[in-house]
Amino acid sequence: MNTDECHRVRIDFGSRSYPILIGAGLLGDPRSYADLPLAQTALIVSNVTIAPLYAQALQRALAAHYPRVLLLTLPDGEAHKDWPHLQFIFDCLLEHGCDRRTVLFALGGGVVGDMTGFAAASYMRGVPFVQVPTTLLAQVDSSVGGKTAINHRLGKNMIGAFYQPVRVICDLDVLRSLPEAELSAGLAEVIKYGPIADMALLDWIESHLPDLLDRRPNALAHVVRRSCEIKASVVGSDERETGVRAILNFGHTFGHAIEAGMGYGAWLHGQAVGCGMVMATLLSHKLGLVDAACYERLRGLIGAARLPVVGPVLDADDNAGRYLDLMRMDKKSEAGEIKFVVIDGAGRALVRSAPDALVREVINASCREH
Amino acid sequence: MNTDECHRVRIDFGSRSYPILIGAGLLGDPRSYADLPLAQTALIVSNVTIAPLYAQALQRALAAHYPRVLLLTLPDGEAHKDWPHLQFIFDCLLEHGCDRRTVLFALGGGVVGDMTGFAAASYMRGVPFVQVPTTLLAQVDSSVGGKTAINHRLGKNMIGAFYQPVRVICDLDVLRSLPEAELSAGLAEVIKYGPIADMALLDWIESHLPDLLDRRPNALAHVVRRSCEIKASVVGSDERETGVRAILNFGHTFGHAIEAGMGYGAWLHGQAVGCGMVMATLLSHKLGLVDAACYERLRGLIGAARLPVVGPVLDADDNAGRYLDLMRMDKKSEAGEIKFVVIDGAGRALVRSAPDALVREVINASCREH
Repeated sequence: MNTDECHRVRIDFGSRSYPILIGAGLLGDPRSYADLPLAQTALIVSNVTIAPLYAQALQRALAAHYPRVLLLTLPDGEAHKDWPHLQFIFDCLLEHGCDRRTVLFALGGGVVGDMTGFAAASYMRGVPFVQVPTTLLAQVDSSVGGKTAINHRLGKNMIGAFYQPVRVICDLDVLRSLPEAELSAGLAEVIKYGPIADMALLDWIESHLPDLLDRRPNALAHVVRRSCEIKASVVGSDERETGVRAILNFGHTFGHAIEAGMGYGAWLHGQAVGCGMVMATLLSHKLGLVDAACYERLRGLIGAARLPVVGPVLDADDNAGRYLDLMRMDKKSEAGEIKFVVIDGAGRALVRSAPDALVREVINASCREH
Repeated sequence: MNTDECHRVRIDFGSRSYPILIGAGLLGDPRSYADLPLAQTALIVSNVTIAPLYAQALQRALAAHYPRVLLLTLPDGEAHKDWPHLQFIFDCLLEHGCDRRTVLFALGGGVVGDMTGFAAASYMRGVPFVQVPTTLLAQVDSSVGGKTAINHRLGKNMIGAFYQPVRVICDLDVLRSLPEAELSAGLAEVIKYGPIADMALLDWIESHLPDLLDRRPNALAHVVRRSCEIKASVVGSDERETGVRAILNFGHTFGHAIEAGMGYGAWLHGQAVGCGMVMATLLSHKLGLVDAACYERLRGLIGAARLPVVGPVLDADDNAGRYLDLMRMDKKSEAGEIKFVVIDGAGRALVRSAPDALVREVINASCREH
C-alpha cells in the first residue's frame, strides 16, 4: 500500500463515528487494521466465491492483530440472505466460545455485509464489526451507513438493525475480479448519487464511463470516494432514516418490487435499482419535476452502463397491479401509501406519493417480457 | 385509575428517555397510552396464559388510540424464546401489512417482553414498542432497561439487542393473578437490589416480607417503584453494559448455569437467580468481602421468600466442572475468564474473577440432588 494513495472519508455518528479507507492493496495490508478493538478472536465471514480469492490474504493481515482468526464461508447470493444462514454465524461464534469482544469482518458484497452486520448487531446484543466490501456496489453503498438486514419470504430486508461498523476498507484492487454484471450493478448506485445530490458527478460519470467500465483505478477511486462522501454526509445527519436519508432509495421502490416479484437473486440488486431509476425518473417527469431530456439522459446513461432499462413483466394479467402490491410492502410505505423518491433534475431528490393511475402509466410504459 | 396513585419513574437515555408508570388499574385505562407514537396499527404480543386474562382489556384501551389493534398469542415459557416463535411475530406483522410506524405491545412476563422487544428492534430495523409487564420479575427487572433477546441452543439470551421501549406500564393489579412461584421469582430480583445498591431496601424487604407474599398493594408498590428507581439509575449511566450495569447480574452467572444445565424452563429465571445469589454471596464470603452473618442473612431471606437456596446437581461426575463450563459461556466472560458479580456487604457490588478452585468450593458447598 502506498499510503499516499489511501483516501479517508469519515462518517460522523458522534461516539460511533468511523473511517472509510479507500485505496489499492488495502485488504492484505496489516496497517489497514491497526487500532481496531482488541480481541482474542476475529471471525471473517465470506462466501464461496470471494473466500478462495481473498480470505487468505485477509487472514494473514489480521494475524498481526488477533491471536485467533476464524473463517466462515457462506453460500453466495441474495437467496441465502435469510435466517438459516444467519444462524450459521451464531453457531460458529458460540461453538468457538467467542466472547463479546470478538470482532467480525464482512469479506464480500452486500449480502455478506448485511448478514455479518446483523449478526454483529445481535450477537450478545452487539459486537464490533468491520466491512471489507469486495464489490463496487458494496463499496459505494451497502457497506456504508450501518443498514444491516436479512430477507423475509414476504419482503426484502424486513428484519435487521441500524448498526454501524467500526471501519470500512475499500480495496480498489479487488474490483478487478468482479464479473462485468456486478461492475454494472455497482455503477447503478454510483449513477444514483448524481441526480439526488451532485449533478457534477453525473457529468463526470458520463464523460468517464469507458474508463469505469475498463476498471481504470483512478476512475474507480474517484467515484468510490465521491459516492462515500455523499453517502456519509446524508446518513451522518439521519442515521435511522427518519428524513433525508430516504433519498438514497432513489430507484429502490420500483427496484425492490422487481427483486421481490422476480424472486430474490434473479436480478442483481444494482440491476433492479438501475431499471428502478429509469422508472422513478419517468415518474418524476410525469409529475412535472423533470423534462423529457433529463429522462432520456438518465435512461441513456443507465443503458450505457450495461444495466437494464426495461422492467420485467411480473404478472401477465395485471402487471402494474402486481408492482403496486409489492411496492405497498416497501418499508417506506405508510398506511398503504407508497412513498416514491423522485428527482428535480437539478441534483435534488424528494419523497412524494403519487396517484396509482400515474404510477400505472409509468409501469406500463417501462415494462415488457424480457 | 386514581392518578394520585400512579408513580412515574423516568429512565434517562437522552432522546430515547421514557417513563415507567406504576400503579393499580393502569392496564385497562386508555390514559396510560396517551401520547404514544401515532400509528394505524398496534400489535399486542402475549402468551396463552396471559392473553385470556388481560388481552381484551388492553385491546379496548388501545382502541381509543389505534384504528386497528391486532393480537398475537405465543406459547408460554422460556423454552419458546427462540427464533421460530420470533418469526411468528414477523409473519404476523408482514401478513397484516404493518408499516414501520406500527407500535408493538408486550403483554406478559420476561419472555414475552424479550421477544417482543427484539422483534420491535429488528422489524424494518426498528419500530416503537411498549412494555406491559404482567409478572413481578418483569416489572422490577426485565421490562426496564432495553435488554431484549432470544435464546440459542448453546446459550441463553445470546441473540438480541439493546433497544429501549417508549413506555413501561406496571399495573400492580395484575400481580394478583400471578402463581406463587412466579411471585417468589420476582422477589429474587427485588431482593437483589438490596446487596448491590441499597441496604435500606434489604431491611425494608425483610420486615415486610409477609406483606409482599400476601401481595399487599402498598408493599408491592414500594418495591416495584424502588427497584425501578435503582435499575433506572444504573442503566441510565450504562445502556450497553460496558461497566456498572454488570452489577445487575448479581446471582445471574451461577443462575444462568443452572438454567442452561437444567434446560431452559425447568427452573424459573428468578428461582435460578435466587439460588445464584446464595452462591455468589458465598463466593463473596470466600473472597473475604462479606462475613458469614451476611451470607446467612441473605440465604435466610431468599429461603423465606420461598426460593431455592440449594443448587441442582448438573453432572454427577464433575458437577463443579459442569458449572464452570457453563459459566465460561456467559456473555460477561472474556477470553474464557468468568466475571463474577460479588458484594461487599455494605450495598455495593463489584465484578471480579476468582480462582477455579474457590469457585469449585462454592459449588460443592451449595449443590445437592433435588
